[in-house]
Amino acid sequence: MGVDPESLIRPLLRNVHGYVPGEQPKIKGLIKLNTNENPYPPAPAVLKAIRHATDGRLRLYPNPTAEPLRARLAKFHRCAPENLIVGNGSDELLALAVRAFVEPAELSASKKSRSTVQFFEPSYSLYPVLADIHGAAKNPVPLSKDFTLPDTEESPKLWDSRAALTFVTSPNAPSGRGYFTSVLEGLCLKQEGIVVLDEAYVDFADENALELALRYPHVLVARTFSKAYSLCFLRVGYFVGHPTLIAALHKIRDSYNVNGLGQIAAETTLDELSYYRRNFKRILATRARLTKALTDLGFVVLTSQTNFLLAKPPKLPASAWLEALREKKILVRWFPYAAVKDYLRITVGTDNDADALIRAARKILAQ
Amino acid sequence: MGVDPESLIRPLLRNVHGYVPGEQPKIKGLIKLNTNENPYPPAPAVLKAIRHATDGRLRLYPNPTAEPLRARLAKFHRCAPENLIVGNGSDELLALAVRAFVEPAELSASKKSRSTVQFFEPSYSLYPVLADIHGAAKNPVPLSKDFTLPDTEESPKLWDSRAALTFVTSPNAPSGRGYFTSVLEGLCLKQEGIVVLDEAYVDFADENALELALRYPHVLVARTFSKAYSLCFLRVGYFVGHPTLIAALHKIRDSYNVNGLGQIAAETTLDELSYYRRNFKRILATRARLTKALTDLGFVVLTSQTNFLLAKPPKLPASAWLEALREKKILVRWFPYAAVKDYLRITVGTDNDADALIRAARKILAQ
Repeated sequence: MGVDPESLIRPLLRNVHGYVPGEQPKIKGLIKLNTNENPYPPAPAVLKAIRHATDGRLRLYPNPTAEPLRARLAKFHRCAPENLIVGNGSDELLALAVRAFVEPAELSASKKSRSTVQFFEPSYSLYPVLADIHGAAKNPVPLSKDFTLPDTEESPKLWDSRAALTFVTSPNAPSGRGYFTSVLEGLCLKQEGIVVLDEAYVDFADENALELALRYPHVLVARTFSKAYSLCFLRVGYFVGHPTLIAALHKIRDSYNVNGLGQIAAETTLDELSYYRRNFKRILATRARLTKALTDLGFVVLTSQTNFLLAKPPKLPASAWLEALREKKILVRWFPYAAVKDYLRITVGTDNDADALIRAARKILAQ
Repeated sequence: MGVDPESLIRPLLRNVHGYVPGEQPKIKGLIKLNTNENPYPPAPAVLKAIRHATDGRLRLYPNPTAEPLRARLAKFHRCAPENLIVGNGSDELLALAVRAFVEPAELSASKKSRSTVQFFEPSYSLYPVLADIHGAAKNPVPLSKDFTLPDTEESPKLWDSRAALTFVTSPNAPSGRGYFTSVLEGLCLKQEGIVVLDEAYVDFADENALELALRYPHVLVARTFSKAYSLCFLRVGYFVGHPTLIAALHKIRDSYNVNGLGQIAAETTLDELSYYRRNFKRILATRARLTKALTDLGFVVLTSQTNFLLAKPPKLPASAWLEALREKKILVRWFPYAAVKDYLRITVGTDNDADALIRAARKILAQ
């Protein structure tokens, strides 16, 4: 058959560029500060629980609705299991939200807002990809220069208060900027469509806005076990929100979307919160130390409420710093987008990681 | 805010019924023959590899493209890594295929075939759900009474040779019927759209059709580590096919879609094939024994090329058998669909499971 396989792919997707995740290279001795992983391991009890569950039971399907984990999370957040859906990382849930709440643009030509995915720029660069894949319209709204939320009253032309779905990374990535719950509540109150508050980094922030997901029927909060809880490898995230929205997401997810060892690891994590909170404190201390040291070296470092720093390096372009640090076996992240192209995003690792980074930066500056 | 959250959900989804997976109950002493899991545990080396990898590295993201696993699978299937995509179970990939290759119906009113998902009835009941969720048209084509593939030449009105996507469960579930590769090839040659040969149970069959995915640019073969390789818990499946189709699926999947321990488990599984092949033989022997014993009791048992049997029970309706067996702590599956409502689908477990089932059936018949 002479069929051209390209012709079998939806035209919509032919020109879509997929999301490009940060590198996961296997270079010996590399200090990996590019994808915001927690530098500390999961709690010993979590590792023990996984090993303990690693037996013949792997032949069985996992709990399809992550019921025991949802019961634990419900207690933790003082809500009902019906307020919760667990995903294969929060990425899966962000994608499901687009599919559940947004019309493909061509299907709703008369009602553009119904097909609009709205997000701030810069924020998590997955959102526009999810919109493109779905054939949705995009409404990227620039953050203020200091990465605070813009006053939507002042820019009503930019802001679509009827957008079907608005993503807010809070605290923001890649800037690290945190937002007051009161400000986020004001934003939510202006929206007729759904607002997803993506709190991937919230355990490193002063405030969280989970209460908004339980107060307003159109607000969802996204959380993940990946970063703060050192479980990237096992892919567990969740949404909190109104049972009606949550039920719609359950309906369209894969039946067994969360692997069983991930469920067990997340359940055990909730028993070990004091371990993780100690690590948050260490990371915050390192963050303060690293902020000061980089500032002393001439970097412009933004105040961070996350486990990473956005920093404008001195002397050389940020992309040159990326390469120079890589040569010294330190991997950080650089984004080729206008708003942040002068910055490096640097994960806050251990104190040793920070020391190595500072030493390397000094050498680069002395070259 | 008085917003009705129901109004925020896409109209398309309000009336969709999600897929209903088989029960995963936690009843002590239950013999679970309802979801076609392998009765034997993963190979000891697989369990060891998982335990060995369960350390601080869980804090890191897994390989985003499952590169080492795809390299191993490429060797195994004598193809290139570009012919392979790994999913969070093959379910994820089946869903991705609908999204990559099928237009929502309203978007292609003029070209109905471009929006048609075609599948046989009965087969995997997820396919129509995937079509509904996507807003695609469905073309269910009845299998012949004996669950063989219908002659599409004889029923050209039923069969859409231009359907965007055709799913073929091969061997068929829930009947257990196997199909010759030559017959499947004939079917593929008639199709202008994409054909997914869903080989979830193929390790228990006489033939597999993997070669078709490497020969024809419009054919994909789906495989899973769940059933034959005792890894349901960890969610690993894959597609084999033309690099252009595979690349389109990669573009729209979640960036880190396969958890890391699942990747490691699957890689190690490929080192231990002789262990699994011994188990396939045991399951086939039990299958033969169970088929004979049930036939002796008056069941009409279809010839199976899978790890389950479709059997029409005597005396009572199949749904009554389901309940009667459940009372005796044996869980089998019954589907309320016309073509199979007189049957039970019974997973082939261990010899002990088979003995318990036969004893229970004798008691029910004696009541």
